Formats: sequence, C-alpha cells, structure tokens
Amino acid sequence: MKAGIINVTGYAGVELARLLARHPEVKLTSVTGRGAVGQTLSDYFPHLAGLDLPIEPELSGSVDVAFSALPQKVSAEAVGPLVKDGVRVIDISADFRLKNVAEYEEWYETRHPYPELLENAVYGLTELYREEIASARLVANPGCYPTSAILALAPAVQAGIIHSDIIIDSKSGVSGAGRGLSLTAHFSEINESVMAYSVNGHRHLPEITQELRRLSPSADIAVTFMPHLIPMTRGILSACYATVKDGALAAGPKGLEELRTLYVDFYRNDPFVRVVTASPMTKHTLGNNDCIVFPNLDLRTNRLVAIGCLDNLVKGAAGQAIENMNVMFGFPETMSLEALALYP
Amino acid sequence: MKAGIINVTGYAGVELARLLARHPEVKLTSVTGRGAVGQTLSDYFPHLAGLDLPIEPELSGSVDVAFSALPQKVSAEAVGPLVKDGVRVIDISADFRLKNVAEYEEWYETRHPYPELLENAVYGLTELYREEIASARLVANPGCYPTSAILALAPAVQAGIIHSDIIIDSKSGVSGAGRGLSLTAHFSEINESVMAYSVNGHRHLPEITQELRRLSPSADIAVTFMPHLIPMTRGILSACYATVKDGALAAGPKGLEELRTLYVDFYRNDPFVRVVTASPMTKHTLGNNDCIVFPNLDLRTNRLVAIGCLDNLVKGAAGQAIENMNVMFGFPETMSLEALALYP
Amino acid sequence: MKAGIINVTGYAGVELARLLARHPEVKLTSVTGRGAVGQTLSDYFPHLAGLDLPIEPELSGSVDVAFSALPQKVSAEAVGPLVKDGVRVIDISADFRLKNVAEYEEWYETRHPYPELLENAVYGLTELYREEIASARLVANPGCYPTSAILALAPAVQAGIIHSDIIIDSKSGVSGAGRGLSLTAHFSEINESVMAYSVNGHRHLPEITQELRRLSPSADIAVTFMPHLIPMTRGILSACYATVKDGALAAGPKGLEELRTLYVDFYRNDPFVRVVTASPMTKHTLGNNDCIVFPNLDLRTNRLVAIGCLDNLVKGAAGQAIENMNVMFGFPETMSLEALALYP
Amino acid sequence: MKAGIINVTGYAGVELARLLARHPEVKLTSVTGRGAVGQTLSDYFPHLAGLDLPIEPELSGSVDVAFSALPQKVSAEAVGPLVKDGVRVIDISADFRLKNVAEYEEWYETRHPYPELLENAVYGLTELYREEIASARLVANPGCYPTSAILALAPAVQAGIIHSDIIIDSKSGVSGAGRGLSLTAHFSEINESVMAYSVNGHRHLPEITQELRRLSPSADIAVTFMPHLIPMTRGILSACYATVKDGALAAGPKGLEELRTLYVDFYRNDPFVRVVTASPMTKHTLGNNDCIVFPNLDLRTNRLVAIGCLDNLVKGAAGQAIENMNVMFGFPETMSLEALALYP
Repeated sequence: MKAGIINVTGYAGVELARLLARHPEVKLTSVTGRGAVGQTLSDYFPHLAGLDLPIEPELSGSVDVAFSALPQKVSAEAVGPLVKDGVRVIDISADFRLKNVAEYEEWYETRHPYPELLENAVYGLTELYREEIASARLVANPGCYPTSAILALAPAVQAGIIHSDIIIDSKSGVSGAGRGLSLTAHFSEINESVMAYSVNGHRHLPEITQELRRLSPSADIAVTFMPHLIPMTRGILSACYATVKDGALAAGPKGLEELRTLYVDFYRNDPFVRVVTASPMTKHTLGNNDCIVFPNLDLRTNRLVAIGCLDNLVKGAAGQAIENMNVMFGFPETMSLEALALYP
Repeated sequence: MKAGIINVTGYAGVELARLLARHPEVKLTSVTGRGAVGQTLSDYFPHLAGLDLPIEPELSGSVDVAFSALPQKVSAEAVGPLVKDGVRVIDISADFRLKNVAEYEEWYETRHPYPELLENAVYGLTELYREEIASARLVANPGCYPTSAILALAPAVQAGIIHSDIIIDSKSGVSGAGRGLSLTAHFSEINESVMAYSVNGHRHLPEITQELRRLSPSADIAVTFMPHLIPMTRGILSACYATVKDGALAAGPKGLEELRTLYVDFYRNDPFVRVVTASPMTKHTLGNNDCIVFPNLDLRTNRLVAIGCLDNLVKGAAGQAIENMNVMFGFPETMSLEALALYP
Repeated sequence: MKAGIINVTGYAGVELARLLARHPEVKLTSVTGRGAVGQTLSDYFPHLAGLDLPIEPELSGSVDVAFSALPQKVSAEAVGPLVKDGVRVIDISADFRLKNVAEYEEWYETRHPYPELLENAVYGLTELYREEIASARLVANPGCYPTSAILALAPAVQAGIIHSDIIIDSKSGVSGAGRGLSLTAHFSEINESVMAYSVNGHRHLPEITQELRRLSPSADIAVTFMPHLIPMTRGILSACYATVKDGALAAGPKGLEELRTLYVDFYRNDPFVRVVTASPMTKHTLGNNDCIVFPNLDLRTNRLVAIGCLDNLVKGAAGQAIENMNVMFGFPETMSLEALALYP
Repeated sequence: MKAGIINVTGYAGVELARLLARHPEVKLTSVTGRGAVGQTLSDYFPHLAGLDLPIEPELSGSVDVAFSALPQKVSAEAVGPLVKDGVRVIDISADFRLKNVAEYEEWYETRHPYPELLENAVYGLTELYREEIASARLVANPGCYPTSAILALAPAVQAGIIHSDIIIDSKSGVSGAGRGLSLTAHFSEINESVMAYSVNGHRHLPEITQELRRLSPSADIAVTFMPHLIPMTRGILSACYATVKDGALAAGPKGLEELRTLYVDFYRNDPFVRVVTASPMTKHTLGNNDCIVFPNLDLRTNRLVAIGCLDNLVKGAAGQAIENMNVMFGFPETMSLEALALYP
C-alpha cells in the first residue's frame, strides 16, 4: 500500500516518516514540504538515514492514504481535493475536528474552505471511534492535549459519576509548538522555566468540550483548560479535576477500587491505553504510542484526579494517525507502533 | 549583628549563606553541617569563594539570630533550646508551621518535641504576618508551595469572592527535593519527564488549608493540592482554580478589572509581590525574592485562575527567611534581597 | 534461542531488555537483579509494560547467550562460571577488555578473578573484530567512550596518516553514570552545568590506547583523554585531534576529499557507522545503534579533527551487545536494531 | 555618572541593564533597542521590574559612558561617532578586537567602517590590559570563548613552557547564540543534544590567536579551536591542550606544583580569576563575574590541560564590560559585580 505525507518537514510530519519507514504493509512513496523541495528526506533530516525520497512541492503518483501535517486552513485546502478524488486522508491539523463550523471559524479566525466535509469526517480518537474510523474517508486526528485529557476523563464522564465542572491542567514539552521559530520555543527563554499560556482560551478547549459532551450529552460540561509549557522536548501530562457526585462511588478506598474497575473495563480492548495504579511519568511513553491513564480520588474532598500522559508526537499526533490508518485499512492496530518507550 | 545557620550543607542552608554574605548589617559568624565538619564553607561549596567560615558540629559563640535549615523534627530539637535561651530563631523546616499539634504529628508521623513553642511561633509569610513577625521570637518560615499558592489566593479568599472548593496544581523544579540523594532527584530519571507526586496528600496541604481558613474562617475551604516535578532546578508555579460566587464580581471584562484592583490593593505595601496582567514565567524570579501573582478569570466558566510563581529557594525558603529577619530586627525589608532575577 | 540478562536493573541492563523484547529470533527467558528480586520486569520498569518476566537472584533454566550488565569484578565473577559451562557470554563490564592483566588490576584496583579467560575474550567493537566475534565464546563489549573515539580515529590511525599525539575530548550525557545514586548524577548539581571529570585518568583511557595501538603497532600512540559531563540523559560526542603527517594527504580541500574517501572505504561494510560531511549531533542517534563519524581537517594547522557520536546506551552499550550477539549466532547484524533515531 | 546602553534588547544588553541597575556610582539614563521602541525596559523584560526607562531609537541626553551590544559592523557604525564626540565607549561586539583590519574584513565579511579607531582601541581583557583600559576612550570587550581560553592559557604561554600547537575545545550554553531566532537555538533541536559547530573556523579564532601571540611574540602559536553547543542556557567551559616543553617543568607531581604556582602568581592581583586545584563546573560561576582557571598536567603524556570556565553573559560579556568601566572611571574593579554565583 502506498502512503504520502503532506508537509513532512515539521515535527509531526517527520515523525510520521520515521514510523512509516518501518511499517511492513505500507510504502511511503511521496512526501511534500514547503521550503525543502529538491532535497531528499535524509538530506533534510539526517536521522532518517537511508530514506532517499525526494521532497516535492505536491504529492506525486497515486497514494492509497495521505497524511496531512500542515497547519490549519492550508491543511483543509490541501486535503479537500484529495478526499473528493477518493484518497483516504488522515488530517493531523485541527480543520475537521470541530463539528460546528461557526465554532471552528471563531476559534481559528478563518473561514473553513471545506465545511461540507465536516459531516462525514470522523474524530480520530481511536479508542472512542474505532468503528467509524474503520470506514472513514477523512479522519480528523485529535490534538495532543485533547487526547491526553479526554482519555483521562472519558470513563468517568460517560459513567456520569462526576459533576460537570472540570478543570484540566496540562503540562507540555516544547515540541508541541512545532519546528517553526518563535520566542516561546527559543531555548534560552524556555529552558529552566515554566509558564501557563493561552490563558484566555487555547484552541484545544472546544475540541475537549465537544468530545466530553458527546460522552455525556445531558450534562452541561464546563471545562477550564490551562496548558503549561515546561522545559522538555516531548511529553504531555494532563491532570483533570472534578467533584464526584454524592453516592456515585462507595466511600473511602472501596470507591477507589470501583473507579479503577470502571477505567479498566472501559479500556479493556484498547492496546494503547494503560490504566495504572501509581502516578505515571511522561518518560514512560517516550517515543511510543501509549497513553497512560491514572484515575485517582482525593478522598479528603471527594474529588476525581485523573491523569493522562503520552508522547505528544506519537499518541498525540503521528502515532495515533498511523493507528488510525491501521484501523482504516484492516491492519493490526499496533502494526509498526510496537516499540517500547525509550528509558531513561 | 551576628547570625548562625544550622545545617548549611543543604540547598536552603547554602542559599542562606549566599544571601547573608552580602547583608550589610549582619555578619555570618557560625555555621553547622552534618558530614562536612572541619571543612570551610568555600571548601565545601566552591561558589562561596572567600567565605572561609569553618563548618562546625554546633553553633559556636553567641548569635543574635539563628536560621535552621534542618529537616523536620531534628530542626525542632535543635532550635527548641535556642529559643528557650533567648536566641531569635527562623526555622525553615515544617516544625512550627501547623498550629494543631495532632495534625503535625499525623502528617509528619512523629511526636513534636516542643509543642509548647507552637503557640507563640509566627507563621512567616511576611505579607500576612508582618506585625507579628516583627516581635516574634520564633518564626516558622513557610513552605515553598504554600508561599506560592497562598499569595495567589489570599486576596480572593479574604474578600470572600470564591467558593470553598479550591484546586491547586503546582509545578516545581527539582531543587525543592533537596541535596539528599534519591531516585526522584536522579538526573536521568527526572530529565525530560514530568510527573505528579504525593498524589494521596503532600505535607504542604495542611499548611495551605490552615492559612486559607485563617483568611476566611467562616468558609469551609476544601483544597485539592497536586504537586508536580518538572525538569528544571529552581522555580515553582502554582495554578489555583476556584469558582467565583455569583455576583461577587461584575460580569465580563469589568469583573476582571475588579479582581485585579482587589489584588493590587491587597499587596500595595508588599515589596516582593508583583501583581501582573500577563502570564508569568518562573524564569522571571530566578535568584530573587519576588513572588509574581497573576489573577485571571476564565470568563466562559466564571472561574478564578490565579497563578503564583517564585524561586523556591529564595522567596520559597532562604530569601523569605532573610526578609523575616529584616522585619524582626528593624532593617529595611528588602535589605540584601535587591538582586533582579537572572535572565535568561 | 534463549537469552538471559544478568543485572537487568541498571540502565544498560534495562536497555538490553527493551531491545531484546522485539528481537524476532531471541526469547528473553531469565533476568536477574540485585535488590528487585521478586518483582517482574514491568513492575520495576513501567515502560516495559507487558514484560512479566520475574527478576530472579540468579539466571534460571538454560540460556544460549547471557549478557552481563554488572559492574566490573562482580561481572567477571558471574560470567566466569557461565563461560566455563559453555554458555556464550557478552560482558558489558570492563572485565575482559584489557589484554594486559596488570593494567586491568592497576586501573580497576582489584585482582582479576578469571585472568585465564582474557586470552580468548574478543574485544566487541563489531567493526574491528567481526570475524573473531562470530566464533567467540566471550565478548568484552567496549566502553561507550572508546566506541565513539576508536571509530572516529581507526581509519586515520590504521592508515598511518597522523602523528602519535592524540587528544580526545568527550562529552557525555549523564545516563553513562548509571542508575546508582551519586552527587554527580543528582539533578540539581548537573543540570545547567558542564565539567570535566576523572581529570587524572579515566578508566576508558587504557582501552582506547590498547585498541589504537593494535591498529598501528609501530606508532607510539600517546592519548590524552578528557571526558566531560553535560546536562542531557543520553549521547556521547568525542572530538579527536591529531596532527596530520606532512605529505600524508594532499594540500587543501583535496586532502579533505582523500580523508573522507579513506573513512568511507574503511566503513564500507559496516551497517551502523555513518560517515558524514557535516558536523553531527548526538540527537541524530537517540535510541538507535548508529555511530556517526565526521572526519574533518583544520586546514590552517593541518590537523585532523574527527568526531564520533552515538547513543551511549545503544551503540555504546546494549545495542552493540545485541549487534555482537547477532554476529555470534549468524543473525543479520542489524536484527532488532533497525529503529531510526528519535527526533526531535 | 550617566551611562547608556545601545541595543538593550539582546541578552548582552539586558544583562548590562541588570548589573548597572544596582551600580552605586552609575545611573542608567538611556537605552536603545531595535523593534522595542516606545516600550519601557520593564514592559519588555518583566524581570527588570521597576526599571521604567523608555527604550529609544537613539541614545538621548549626554552620557559619560556608552555600552554597545549591537552585532558587528552596525556596532562600529553606532559607536564611531560617539567616540569622536568624546564619549567613552565599551563595545561588546567584535568590531574593535582585531588589530589587523584585513583579518577583520576577511572573517566578518564586511568592510570596517572606522578602521582609524583600531589603533587606539584597547582589547578589554581586564587581566591583561588593566592599565591601558584605565585611560582608554574605546574598549573592545572580548568574546566569551576568548576570555575563557586566553585566561586558561595566558600564564603558560607567557612563561614559554608549552609548545606552539594548541587545541582549544569549548562547550557553550545556548544564550551565547543570542536572542535572535534560529534553528540552532530552537529548544527542541538543541535540548538533549551536543554538537560541534563552525567546524571550519569560528570567528573567535583570530582573536584568540592574536592575544596568545601578543603574550609570546616569538612563538609561532597555531591554534585549533572547536566550539560545541550544549543544552544549557549560560556557561562556557574551555579545555585547552598543549605539550609541555621538555624540562620546562619538573617531572611528576612537582611539575604540577610549579605550574600551579605560575598560575597563582600570574593572577595574584586579579579579583575575578580563581585558580583552583579541582575540576570546576560552570555552575560555580552562574550569574557572577568569575573566571575559574584549573591548570593541570596529563603526566602520562606531559601535556598541559588547562580549563577555564565562566558565565558567558557576565565575565564573557556584560560583567567584564562593567569591570572595564570600573577600571576606566576609577571605581573599585568589583563594584556591582560582587554577587556570588547562584547555586544550584
């Protein structure tokens, strides 16, 4: 099977290339990149030694699946025609994640070029939409923050055991900001420091809210989402807080057992979600496709504290995209994603 | 005036030495340290070049003020007799922070050796207890996390504008774990990773709760406190979340103005608290005694999001201790603490 | 085929487990570890999720190959009996690297427990000793620094184009210091700092000298080796300096071409050495088994400046050990070592 | 006394502001900055809280001393007229460091706008040119690498105890690359990696060579200089290698004693050079103006290994500039530079 990557020169794009290079059923046959046209992949990225594919201005030849790692809007502009031509597409940008066009246009401050594709686009959180993904023509790969937060909260939200006021405090490595230059990704500004950003609303908020509401349509979910930048390259850890409804769980340690059982059951068939009983670290996901979920209770205040952590470029981007491709084409879901995390 | 430091060989102790070395009114005349007796300060810590004071087993000579940077319990055992002898003491350990002995003994799993001193010990958060500190014989210097969180929340709690459910999500550099060896301070384990720890209750929780309740005795403050370790040496940033009471602030941006005015007024006379209008980074406090406080509102959900950040070894430990000493002895509060932050 | 790991609980040991877990021809059947006996691999190392092998006090059952990741001396004590029993062994410690027992005993300050095994032990730098490794019963896996430095210098030394005075200035990440606690691996001491260490002689010096002399027995090679610790987890980069003999290379850029050809030819059949024409970064080897070699000339002073870089836990330890195992058992040399580097 | 800073918005400029803000004899009265005109210093740099000086397009009012932190060429263009107007100038750029105009123009690939000022410009390495600096109108502040390397080598070179072949291997934090955006200062590219750069000749090489030759005019000094970028913000450590002349020092440990005495004597009157007997770390200079020099011998090969380390923004830039100003205006050399290093 043949695959193409649009905009291979960013961090999500090059991670797709790294993972696809070892996929036994897929051959990467075409890659595009703005500003690197004419070079080969291994010229531009020395760690991709041996991948001598030329970087082209547009995908060439026919491909069975195309991944887009372009920024929003230009991504929709690039993949719209492909979808209409019958190529199955996995879009890593935000363009097809929000079902409500007006909401998209408000948050992203642009007109959507292909609103007609939204209806059939599938939100690519594999654990929640595996069936729809299997037959999808266009998959909207989730954001890195939403993947960590939604997976940490989904069992509790769907089961209706928490109140609707939810706080999500996330910490991210810097690679999430991409390969484009900016002062907020400048080494000396970021190293040895931590800060919250997008304090008046991060673009991943509507995506999180949309999905939590789909899990519990009758609840009036109200999310406060606060992302932080911390001095590391890869990794996201989201701590999610909500008050447990009275009587929803047994009192004391027994309630904690019920909570864990709820989570383990929810993710029983998901190869990449690991429900754990001790506080996880992002290092335990470095370079692999796991999302580690740690559901816990603050028994003093009867609050759920659910932590989700992952590698933002793998389960938070390229890895989940390949997982979705595997589902779409009937390959084993874990194919080419078997690597254990790199530790330490 | 003469000062002594008990246990100068940990990070808080050596930071005290660094700051006292340049204090124009105080002479550091005696230091103790377990395991380094016989060496001089500059032998043991090359960056203290020129400080040739010998490290002794016990404080020698008479001192006007003693700082203890010992761990809990052994600190109380060391400073108890000094206080009884009339030496004014600033204790950086947790031993005299909690007013309730039983609570101390439960959280620290030890019997308190000098419970009779608790009544007159003053909690050394300078901004809240400046007057009591001025005449105190024994000051219990606050923890690093509590300093950042209490200062971020105090104006809102005292004014009664928020509900009693409070979430505090803190991120700390590793120096807070001290100079003692442990896997959780081992470079390769901590670098490039983030994790929550003490997930079932950190010892700074009762201290935070005690102080917030003193600010609003009638509210039934219920705090969830979740500390995280991030890969940097110095710095703490605490994000504090609580729902604003209906009508407590005007709707929309006007409410935000009211909130900021409340905070600015509250800290009007505090030289080391800076109330700001943009999200701060811990780097802006590196090596200095400021606590930067950023009060903000999530207008979508009507929630207070108040951020406090500081250098855990300065305002979070040694700097605040010297600030308290300045207050106790009538020196200008900022004396020897004037350094601007080291940036970048 | 069955493999065992002795002392899986250090960084080299756990990296062996990570890499062997995906080897298609080898089954990891037994692991030992001091201090973790009774736990499973995935209990002790959460990133090895799914590896439920118990950690035992001694290897159990029969194995075809055993890896030892013990420290020196105790490693020889553990593998000596295995070798005598006919198990093929790859020893990651330094115990069988030095051919001269007296030199070993001087540098490691201990008596060698199995000097009689030295004669038939093969130095496991795959590129230099592939044939001997193929039939070896005992392979002494090289040190991380020596691998980077010897590979950077071997073509020039063997060709006799440089004088015998050689300077090797190496920079290493902290994981090379292992998982054992020490102040020189304590986060707050190492982060944001660089230092040279072992300034009066590092134990890898005799190993480097031995191997360079074997490449050019008539030259009186005199090496100054200076290792530095830098604030990162994985990676070693060695810069090697030596004066080019008059007339050994053509003048100017043509000489550089000759140099590069010499290196490319030397490593023509080595899948894991990449000879490059631009200054490499350790990041380009993260998690994979490559050693990148960059031969260059300082044309102003007619000096060779050859750089070698690698991941100290992969090509510098566990990866090379598996490469050697592949050679010993007739598997393709790259088997289970195909992963591209993790970037960024 | 009044001082101005030209281009305060880079890292050297802002560090000048930080240090001048606390100078008891100097008032910072005017600052300029490209791209930040109209803001105040504390708007632009929150850590300079309280410094409400406006950032202007040109220096305003009269100043007694001007510091230029502009890049090369534009710096000469800015300070040339000031010098001619009688303002005493300390130029942090490279424009007036090289005595040979042709050499400058070749390395910096530009025509020098004020070659006539070169003759009377003084190279501002305080330890070597204190007297000339005292009366200078124009001081060319040294580069960060040259300061570390020249101070590490000067005593040995001047005493004539080493041969003329010198290798300097330097490791630098990223702040040396400045605040301007580039991929080589992009967090995710630099973090967790080390690389050599400017491998065919760094612009600090001619400066180092010029000064070492002035110390030993008859020797034909030939320097290979190799800078490396390591993942930290501040700090430079240079390891310098050269062969000791036969008989220049006594054999064995006695020679080491002679070497140390030579260094201690050389720097007897220099408040900011600390000659030490153990391998130093850059952390011991963080934020202060020391250069730590560690002279050592590789007794196996009779080679000098001299290490110099410093904070590249302090002794390597802004601190040394203020030290020079102190000398020029008759203030104590250490004034406003007394801070001890920030540790850890």
